[in-house]
Amino acid sequence: MGAKAAIVGAGHTRFGALDAGPRALLRNAVDAAFASVDRGAERSVVDEAYLASLGFGGWQIGNSAAVLAEELGQPGLPTTHIENACASGGFAIRAAVAALGSGAADLVLVAGVEKMTDVPSGRRRYWLGVSGDTEWERLAGLTFAGVYGLIASRYLSDHRVGPEALAEVAVKNHENGALNPNAHFRKVLRSDQVLRAPRVADPLGLYDCCPVSDGAAALLLARADLARRFTDTPVYLEGLGAGSDHLAVQERPELTRFVASRRAAEAAFRAADVDRGRISFLEVHDCFTIAELLALEDLGYAAPGEAAEITLSGATRRTGRLPVNPDGGLKAKGHPIGATGVSQAYEVFLQLRGAAGARQVPGATRALTHNVGGAGATATVTIFAAG
Amino acid sequence: MGAKAAIVGAGHTRFGALDAGPRALLRNAVDAAFASVDRGAERSVVDEAYLASLGFGGWQIGNSAAVLAEELGQPGLPTTHIENACASGGFAIRAAVAALGSGAADLVLVAGVEKMTDVPSGRRRYWLGVSGDTEWERLAGLTFAGVYGLIASRYLSDHRVGPEALAEVAVKNHENGALNPNAHFRKVLRSDQVLRAPRVADPLGLYDCCPVSDGAAALLLARADLARRFTDTPVYLEGLGAGSDHLAVQERPELTRFVASRRAAEAAFRAADVDRGRISFLEVHDCFTIAELLALEDLGYAAPGEAAEITLSGATRRTGRLPVNPDGGLKAKGHPIGATGVSQAYEVFLQLRGAAGARQVPGATRALTHNVGGAGATATVTIFAAG
Repeated sequence: MGAKAAIVGAGHTRFGALDAGPRALLRNAVDAAFASVDRGAERSVVDEAYLASLGFGGWQIGNSAAVLAEELGQPGLPTTHIENACASGGFAIRAAVAALGSGAADLVLVAGVEKMTDVPSGRRRYWLGVSGDTEWERLAGLTFAGVYGLIASRYLSDHRVGPEALAEVAVKNHENGALNPNAHFRKVLRSDQVLRAPRVADPLGLYDCCPVSDGAAALLLARADLARRFTDTPVYLEGLGAGSDHLAVQERPELTRFVASRRAAEAAFRAADVDRGRISFLEVHDCFTIAELLALEDLGYAAPGEAAEITLSGATRRTGRLPVNPDGGLKAKGHPIGATGVSQAYEVFLQLRGAAGARQVPGATRALTHNVGGAGATATVTIFAAG
Repeated sequence: MGAKAAIVGAGHTRFGALDAGPRALLRNAVDAAFASVDRGAERSVVDEAYLASLGFGGWQIGNSAAVLAEELGQPGLPTTHIENACASGGFAIRAAVAALGSGAADLVLVAGVEKMTDVPSGRRRYWLGVSGDTEWERLAGLTFAGVYGLIASRYLSDHRVGPEALAEVAVKNHENGALNPNAHFRKVLRSDQVLRAPRVADPLGLYDCCPVSDGAAALLLARADLARRFTDTPVYLEGLGAGSDHLAVQERPELTRFVASRRAAEAAFRAADVDRGRISFLEVHDCFTIAELLALEDLGYAAPGEAAEITLSGATRRTGRLPVNPDGGLKAKGHPIGATGVSQAYEVFLQLRGAAGARQVPGATRALTHNVGGAGATATVTIFAAG
């Protein structure tokens, strides 16, 4: 079936250790989204709003959707808070597209936010850890870095590859992030720096892990048939897919494939009815370097173990044949949990309109976003096309 | 427009202080929902699942949607956690109906759960309080009982009515709850007991407040045109509405009307295109007795101040002309936050199929549910009709 929704505006704050609280971050992203609409959009025309957030910085934990309506300047508006851990943004976009597709709304606001620095450290650890399985992982002390470290060990061992492939993910994404004015890290790295960095969860070192970031991103999504009221260059959502998996990694038959990502990708490609070769670039969920390798395989761009070789070949660089994470990815751009899935779509909006500046992927016409919750317990994949 | 969705199965646990944890509660409600489908439904036929919960008992706080897919026995399924405080259930139903209406799904599971007793008391207070405004209410020590106490004071003063109308809400709902085998409280109360009970937040006493309950409820929602595959007596969702308001009560022009409820009701009645007089009974959000009076007014069944008189007249009793909360309401049935909105629809499913036993509203053909998040910051209204 044809696209039911299109992005007609998008806004983004800087990602990083910021002074602003979650309310102000949301407001800034929403304001920027409205400012980006070519022919303008009245705030009163928005029919619904969806908020993606894990914990709103531990501040407004319950009923935080109401804050989004307030910061939009439309208290009264139907507004829904969606929480699927690090995949909250992808699932919020999906819910918004369902609202548009069902005829319940013509124009919808989706915003994601997280405030993770400058909150009491005990609470910060709590909010990061709560998305893993409580009984078998969190209470046993197994952090996300720990889980991904186990996955990376298995991957390197099964496929007899060295840590250089992981390091190359970091090098590439930092190179891209250096060109992104919103990125948390804008410093380029050399492979030997990544390989010699202090270990976090072997084989993952400091530069294999995404940072703890504050930030927000917002999208204005319109019904596809109304999109040209707002702009001549909407970006269409051609296919959406989602999936889940056992929450505890120990329940899964394999460590190095995420069933949730695979199901999401299959559904998205089926809905969009396009071949993988027609996607110009990917925005994948690289919370740790190993996650980018898994993503290439789960999304169907590499056979098991091949992602390492493809990455080392330079194919996934911004100038390669399949650019991955031209905005720097979670690794360099940062990962404010609820904002991440929305931020991926923001990057697609810029790129497919040729507005990504120094980091533009030349001639990009289609893109895919891949957003993962926790260590693969939930995931979304969305395929976008230029208007 | 015609109904896009119908309930074809529904399940419910007991509400109360239960031994079971949130996983087991969810499983029991989901199993009961499947068992209730007249012609049966395979679990593998479910396309999506939506989980309504505030904090999952403080246990699996992040990514808890994945637990629902696991307890359904379908890890892999797209699953979304929706959190709009006490209105999580209503908003989850709304998201599920959008998924059905957009063509993305044919059969959807919606489940709500909360585990609120037998968790460390510090965490329990935290989870209850987090749905109020953090800056102006929670951190200032203003609890929900406090907010509703202020609202009740203003209501009684503005309309020159006595606390007997509040007491009558409790008496009526306990009378109904006594007939509901799933209710937390099955004890009838006399008006003088309510009026003489220890004060919680004057003019609200102990029996003006709903209890802290554990419990779960689940619904199977099908596309309207497919509903008769599952049963000869589906219950159709004719109209859905939602709204929001300033999170902090101090920002609102009036204490005694909830803009969110009013907007939700207007939208639901517009979508269903039915008159208020054609609704056989109401399930309203009576977290405190005063909330039931506000609901009657916000839903358009009484002018400001009139709800007290209508209630004292006996009209809202199960045998009156406009029965309200035949299942006992939050007041007597209990209020496991995320489960409440789903539980309201469960009651409608029984009643509109003539299966509510001793508490059956005779001849019920249409019903309305009203679910409020926090002290009115978010709300949904849904109108249902017998098949």
